[in-house]
Amino acid sequence: MNAPAASGSLLPEFAQRPIPPEFLQALSQRFGAQCSTAMAVREQHGRDEGSIAAPPPSAVVFAESTRDVQDAIALASQYAVPVIPYGAGSSLEGHLLAVQGGISLDVSRMNRILSVNTEDLTVTVQPGITRKQLNEAIKDTGFFFPIDPGADASIGGMTATRASGTNAVRYGTMRENVLALELVTASGDVIRTGTRAKKSSAGYDLTRLIVGSEGTLGVATEITLKLYPLPEAVSAAICSFPSIEAAVRTVIQTIQIGVPIARVELIDVNSVRMVNTYSKLELREEPMLLMEFHGSPTGVKEQAEMVQDIAGEFGGNAFEWAERPEDRTRLFTARHNAYFAAVASRPGCRCITTDACVPISRLADALLDSVREADESAIPYFLVGHVGDGNFHFGYLIDPESSDERERAERLNHQLVERAIGVGGTCTGEHGVGIHKMQFLRDETGDGAVEMMRAIKRALDPKNILNPGKIFAL
Amino acid sequence: MNAPAASGSLLPEFAQRPIPPEFLQALSQRFGAQCSTAMAVREQHGRDEGSIAAPPPSAVVFAESTRDVQDAIALASQYAVPVIPYGAGSSLEGHLLAVQGGISLDVSRMNRILSVNTEDLTVTVQPGITRKQLNEAIKDTGFFFPIDPGADASIGGMTATRASGTNAVRYGTMRENVLALELVTASGDVIRTGTRAKKSSAGYDLTRLIVGSEGTLGVATEITLKLYPLPEAVSAAICSFPSIEAAVRTVIQTIQIGVPIARVELIDVNSVRMVNTYSKLELREEPMLLMEFHGSPTGVKEQAEMVQDIAGEFGGNAFEWAERPEDRTRLFTARHNAYFAAVASRPGCRCITTDACVPISRLADALLDSVREADESAIPYFLVGHVGDGNFHFGYLIDPESSDERERAERLNHQLVERAIGVGGTCTGEHGVGIHKMQFLRDETGDGAVEMMRAIKRALDPKNILNPGKIFAL
Repeated sequence: MNAPAASGSLLPEFAQRPIPPEFLQALSQRFGAQCSTAMAVREQHGRDEGSIAAPPPSAVVFAESTRDVQDAIALASQYAVPVIPYGAGSSLEGHLLAVQGGISLDVSRMNRILSVNTEDLTVTVQPGITRKQLNEAIKDTGFFFPIDPGADASIGGMTATRASGTNAVRYGTMRENVLALELVTASGDVIRTGTRAKKSSAGYDLTRLIVGSEGTLGVATEITLKLYPLPEAVSAAICSFPSIEAAVRTVIQTIQIGVPIARVELIDVNSVRMVNTYSKLELREEPMLLMEFHGSPTGVKEQAEMVQDIAGEFGGNAFEWAERPEDRTRLFTARHNAYFAAVASRPGCRCITTDACVPISRLADALLDSVREADESAIPYFLVGHVGDGNFHFGYLIDPESSDERERAERLNHQLVERAIGVGGTCTGEHGVGIHKMQFLRDETGDGAVEMMRAIKRALDPKNILNPGKIFAL
Repeated sequence: MNAPAASGSLLPEFAQRPIPPEFLQALSQRFGAQCSTAMAVREQHGRDEGSIAAPPPSAVVFAESTRDVQDAIALASQYAVPVIPYGAGSSLEGHLLAVQGGISLDVSRMNRILSVNTEDLTVTVQPGITRKQLNEAIKDTGFFFPIDPGADASIGGMTATRASGTNAVRYGTMRENVLALELVTASGDVIRTGTRAKKSSAGYDLTRLIVGSEGTLGVATEITLKLYPLPEAVSAAICSFPSIEAAVRTVIQTIQIGVPIARVELIDVNSVRMVNTYSKLELREEPMLLMEFHGSPTGVKEQAEMVQDIAGEFGGNAFEWAERPEDRTRLFTARHNAYFAAVASRPGCRCITTDACVPISRLADALLDSVREADESAIPYFLVGHVGDGNFHFGYLIDPESSDERERAERLNHQLVERAIGVGGTCTGEHGVGIHKMQFLRDETGDGAVEMMRAIKRALDPKNILNPGKIFAL
């Protein structure tokens, strides 16, 4: 699929910086076959899963060690050339785009597990490992890493965007699950943040500052994560509802009474239809919740009974249980494929994804008005959500050649974000700001907070070489 | 008690900055009776519960509003005078000391609850409210704020030190429980960080950067916290063990199998004796664990049975249960009074408190060597710990007039911290760095991370007026 040209007043201008030929020579000399300037490689690294396109980077360096990352950044610093870290390419907000030119620094070959400490429930990995690779490698230990954004993202990328996903409602986000980092700074130095201790009051929380900084403050080369014991019992269920509102009100009450539900995903009728077609399923074509419970056998039973009672009050149908692991996997795979099912439902389309997250009590208000507006717009869309956290995604499926559709979709997004901010929420629950939500960030947090972010960026990356042009303009 | 003069090579030098008389005049003019230069008030605000002393601040401003905080800081900025935020005065690492001169900014009158949102499990408060005031005010809502550092600290101070305490093992620390802030910056501007949404990927995590920054980057004037439903069932128990090691191994196994215990406090024999005397109790004079379980009635029973089984394996005695709320309160009050019980056991002493936190698997090693060294030192001490988090506190009770005792105690602390860092831990689990642990911070995190902190400080407080001389030298 050809990526569309960036268009419309909602997107920033792209001003390419000069890339000195001496820089590319020095890079090639240092990295040899680990450096590619082939157009196919550059193009693959110059886009993500989002809907915006920019010219590709001038070269791609495949780092294999912390030393490689240091040297690439030191060279880029010397020539004041942008460096864009690249993991699995699954980000959604234009994070990987070389909007000011520069090079892509691919860390996917740095995918080793450096140490597993099951006694302390920690694991230290390189940034290029994906969450599925990690869980596959440790599956015999009795522990797992729960954060699951859907895509098989790299741990480095998940760290950079403060990712979360389906079971953050129980296990938290990358904010809560990254303990420590080895980081290459904008000058090419290596620092360490955090420790393997569970908590600390040792100075500024640099780990949390880097988590979610979208590659603009440093490149993580080692990441220490929390692990969790595989739950003794797991059960999953789906429940259909007469309306989105009924489903959402079930979730609100479940969270408010403190049920430690492990996953609770909203799937609207559009998504159910798309998923049925794409994954050859026969799910009932009604709004539904897809739930998972983790705990001891009695705990899981207790949780499920409480939620069944609540669902019943709101007209939910009887739970359909997925008892066997393969049935659970099938259901959640269907959920994770909603995005691809939707994109497949309109060939050639691009998807503009919203990511608002609101306080749980305001979820129904925030959602239902946006459903009405989307229905009125006549743009094909789907709606899914990690609703236990108050986080939901509309996907507007636009014709990339139609600036009218793009503008209408962006307007829907804008209205949705305004509403979320108005009720005390955020424009992005888990995807990050990238180049797509800069103005939303300013609307949400105010100029003062953005100025503080810019001051930090200038202090830590004075030449503005680390993923420049993302989160805010400098 | 007269505070001792700072002594010894382990402490930083204090270089007072000039305080222009025009500044004090302008302050007095703006704040009238809200500004005091009385020596008793200044002395009370120029110390904390730690063991180090410095000359008192030149004045104390009692802020009653965000506007007051802004104006005090703007004036201080104009004259480049240090401002030291003050809440309840319960910090332990010299955080409140005017080591470079300046004024104390007392926010204890800003103690209102601004909004309670039980539907969203959030509350927004002013910084001067204490944790007990907060919980007393919301006790009829069915929700509570769990973070409990022992002292009745202010929420502002707890935010500044990234406090935690007895039930952080279940509910996390201030890192996990502060959602959003209103902050007055070093220029006197007001910014907002975070939202009431449960999660967000909206740019740099300024909230987490401010939490734990010890008043050096801004003064929080509104703090939004998470609330939790009061557990349906609570039960507490004590269990005595033949040795500290047996108690600690019980805790390690409890955590490793994932029991969601709400509190698990280690109390050594010395502490038990001191507490028995101070609180007129008759606890068995053996190392003990003080535990609390929260959950549904069956959940609590299940948890307690699992821990009883583990304790039995390590020779623990039968649990003694505290079923009634007043009995639980009595036990935990005794625990919280351990510090005061210890100080009372040696009249006129000061207490040097350690605060290391290590990965749980290394807890026994880290603790037992330090017990041996403390026993050999002949300095009176006690040992308590939030051991479920790997965090423990030795309190060395020194004669403040004896530089020999101070040096020996600091040497014990130094050895303990070195050991903690060596096993992947931190020098401070919850008290913060202050002026006491600057070198430890550098030992722990390395020069590179401290340089990053300094760069952030310089960028956000270019005149170095916000609590200068804490965490690191500038």
